[in-house]
Amino acid sequence: MNGAQALLQTLVANGVDTCFMNPGTSEMHFVAALDQVSQMRGVLGVFEGVATGAADGYARMAGKPAAVLLHLGPGLGNGLANLHNARKAFTPVINIVGDHALYHKQYDAQLESDIHTVARNVSSWIRTCRDPATIGHDVAAAVQAAIGPPGNVATLILPADVSWSDGGVPADPLAKRPAGAADDSAIESIARLLRSGDRVGLFLGGSALGERGVRAAARIAAATGAKVLVETFPRRLERGGGLPELERLAYLGEFAAMQLDGLQHLVLVDTKSPVTFFAYPDKPSDLVPDGCQVHQLGDRRNDAEATLERLALAVDAPAELALSAPARPDRPTGELTAVSVAATIGALLPDNAIVSDEAQTSGMFTPGATAGAPRHSWLTLTGGAIGQGLPAATGAAVACPDRPVLALEADGSALYTIQALWTQARDQLDVTTIIYNNRSYSILNMELGRVGADGGGPKAQAMLDLHRPNIDFVQIAEGFGVPACRPSTAEAFADALERALGEPGPHLIEAVIPPIF
Amino acid sequence: MNGAQALLQTLVANGVDTCFMNPGTSEMHFVAALDQVSQMRGVLGVFEGVATGAADGYARMAGKPAAVLLHLGPGLGNGLANLHNARKAFTPVINIVGDHALYHKQYDAQLESDIHTVARNVSSWIRTCRDPATIGHDVAAAVQAAIGPPGNVATLILPADVSWSDGGVPADPLAKRPAGAADDSAIESIARLLRSGDRVGLFLGGSALGERGVRAAARIAAATGAKVLVETFPRRLERGGGLPELERLAYLGEFAAMQLDGLQHLVLVDTKSPVTFFAYPDKPSDLVPDGCQVHQLGDRRNDAEATLERLALAVDAPAELALSAPARPDRPTGELTAVSVAATIGALLPDNAIVSDEAQTSGMFTPGATAGAPRHSWLTLTGGAIGQGLPAATGAAVACPDRPVLALEADGSALYTIQALWTQARDQLDVTTIIYNNRSYSILNMELGRVGADGGGPKAQAMLDLHRPNIDFVQIAEGFGVPACRPSTAEAFADALERALGEPGPHLIEAVIPPIF
Repeated sequence: MNGAQALLQTLVANGVDTCFMNPGTSEMHFVAALDQVSQMRGVLGVFEGVATGAADGYARMAGKPAAVLLHLGPGLGNGLANLHNARKAFTPVINIVGDHALYHKQYDAQLESDIHTVARNVSSWIRTCRDPATIGHDVAAAVQAAIGPPGNVATLILPADVSWSDGGVPADPLAKRPAGAADDSAIESIARLLRSGDRVGLFLGGSALGERGVRAAARIAAATGAKVLVETFPRRLERGGGLPELERLAYLGEFAAMQLDGLQHLVLVDTKSPVTFFAYPDKPSDLVPDGCQVHQLGDRRNDAEATLERLALAVDAPAELALSAPARPDRPTGELTAVSVAATIGALLPDNAIVSDEAQTSGMFTPGATAGAPRHSWLTLTGGAIGQGLPAATGAAVACPDRPVLALEADGSALYTIQALWTQARDQLDVTTIIYNNRSYSILNMELGRVGADGGGPKAQAMLDLHRPNIDFVQIAEGFGVPACRPSTAEAFADALERALGEPGPHLIEAVIPPIF
Repeated sequence: MNGAQALLQTLVANGVDTCFMNPGTSEMHFVAALDQVSQMRGVLGVFEGVATGAADGYARMAGKPAAVLLHLGPGLGNGLANLHNARKAFTPVINIVGDHALYHKQYDAQLESDIHTVARNVSSWIRTCRDPATIGHDVAAAVQAAIGPPGNVATLILPADVSWSDGGVPADPLAKRPAGAADDSAIESIARLLRSGDRVGLFLGGSALGERGVRAAARIAAATGAKVLVETFPRRLERGGGLPELERLAYLGEFAAMQLDGLQHLVLVDTKSPVTFFAYPDKPSDLVPDGCQVHQLGDRRNDAEATLERLALAVDAPAELALSAPARPDRPTGELTAVSVAATIGALLPDNAIVSDEAQTSGMFTPGATAGAPRHSWLTLTGGAIGQGLPAATGAAVACPDRPVLALEADGSALYTIQALWTQARDQLDVTTIIYNNRSYSILNMELGRVGADGGGPKAQAMLDLHRPNIDFVQIAEGFGVPACRPSTAEAFADALERALGEPGPHLIEAVIPPIF
């Protein structure tokens, strides 16, 4: 057994049975080993950002990590943005970066570079495999580090000769770190706060936003009057189907400040204290109101949902809430706009869907329009590195072949990793992509004013628009093998969405809409 | 004047008047400043790898650096692969990475990451701008570091508040480091070697391959019988139009060994000792034959062409060579194959063309077929990080608007940075792209065997093929606004190429051909 085979066997023994990859020569023995280790599925991406974003989306939905396989430093570079998003999501990823044979590195061949230094940007756990005899142990340690909690991007650097040499030894899984609720004393101290009559906000993120966490938070709010807020970009939020609808903190600091206004205490559960996404001249970065005390309930290693359930008990919250589900919108008619697209999605979202939301400004009406939809999972851009929505949808569809996936995608963001469409076509993944094509970096048009830049000149404006020429996403999608259409009214859009959702395999619908900003 | 304006003014004062960019919110003041600093041209890419690869291609042709503007750590990640290629080419690049405001970094907002650690992979010169008052000096130092010689990727990290704050002070250019020929004694010692009767090889790379260097090398060979070899992946090789045709070292170590066989001395001029691209089990990485002595003539700081001219003098080489130019191939007929595509290019390559060659296995016949073509510059993939050809062609066309550019592009490689087509369409660049679509990672099929991997299984094979579904590059190109066609015979291909070369603006021709391996 060579090193690569031992590596794959150990991954499978650890429950890691999917690898998103874009391999090169130095990874050929890894690729060859796919046929010896039958439980491992290889999913090819034609760009590394597809592979890393898919691994993130996969893990968010599967609740366990996938592996990615990248080709030396440049491959890691190409995959870095979506590993950044995974890091910010605390998503577990086994990030395997092939390298030159150990003895070849001294020659400074064309693809030689310092992989370790790049990996440090996204990984706190990095190890170079140096021997097929210990590769199994390296892999088991990587899986342990990746799973956490909290989840991590664990990077294994895999020299070609360690892959190809005989003497590979697989290893058994290492113990998982146990995750329980926060300490009783910490929970009791927050419970006292909630009973004190002070105005308390519960700010939730990370692993707190599963069904149990969402229900417990709503029960706590009902019992105590606490204000519940969800972080702006949750990695996975369970919604719809009668689940309590939690309010998300706005992206714009001005609105977020209104949501937080008047709070005397802000309790963080698996998230960090709210700050603006960017700095703006003469505006505060820290969104916590003056005089508001911030409390951390537990930490990232805890089971945040268990913490919330214990907190609900401690404040004598009702066991069940009788909620009236919000209404679903009707299928809209008339002009195709961000509003009518949102309403159509609200009207048609199928049960048990997964929504990968990278629609930026054009998507601002979608959460509201879908609050009354059947149960679904909502994935967002945790790290702000655009180009995540299509790959994450791809990975989510691999993780959950029985669930329909909807990718809500801004035109500008889509272009970073548009190659994901090919993987969707090849693996016939049930992903329906909606491109909100407003033919501009609309968010930058908005931000230009917010940062106080005098950006009205023609050269600045030219850097923010995406027309001249207009991008035809229908042709691009079909070029990658995904059936696509461009309806021009709300009615035609609804028909197209219904058809796409009703058929297996990938589809893309381009919605040309006016920019909001 | 704010920091961004001082930065742009200093770039322009240093002769850097083109910036390839994919900006975000933290770079909005830089973008706004484009309208105040009229001499600076902004060229938008919809993916960062386009911007960095274009900067590389631009500098190779313009002989001076461009700037690139990227958005924080993830933007740098997306641009890293082509900065790697620039680093390996010793191309000067002013790599500007926007960052959060200095006071905002403490909050660990979504896009916060360690930019410095990523930059270290491609830059030995990195500086964070900390004050608008010193930003001009930072920029001048970056330009000095980038220009070298040798050329470098100089990275400036630009916090948003340093951009937007008043008090910006531009700076004058710093002194350029002088570059002369290697020392007389070093030249004389190599001249003695060349006169000794021993079998000597001259191995040329980097800046040695301009017209003067090529002519001098051929004259030395004519006078002394030395064997002249060019590095496998030169950054820019001048060819055609009666220039002496120099032999390039083969990519495959087996062939390279034959080319080097029997040499007693190998003299390196602006390149490094030849090694295989990858390691292969039981094959040497070092390509220098046993018993062959390696000599370095000068170093990267020298003017390698001046060194070669002095060496030609020292060996009493003839002032001129009477060369018979190789014949141009006829326009081929019949089947469309890698061979007939190469012959067509050889027959039709226009005078003064720039060829960006990333055609991988399918391109192996093109250098031979174009040796008799009119004068042209040949750019190659210096760092092995694929996805460079289309961006480099884009940048070369920006640098040389009066020269036709031909991008020879493998299907697999094209997909990494296919978004370059949009920039070509927007800026109406005169680039004709030929996609060699063999519907596979053909080079990996070859390498699979060469590394000794038992990769015949269906799962391994599936990771190397690019059909199921076939990629339609015509649709993708048209989706990005580039006119495209897919001729199916050699005759139709020649007609299409002639038409594309005869019209201004970008074109793409998809050549579906059988794989060579």
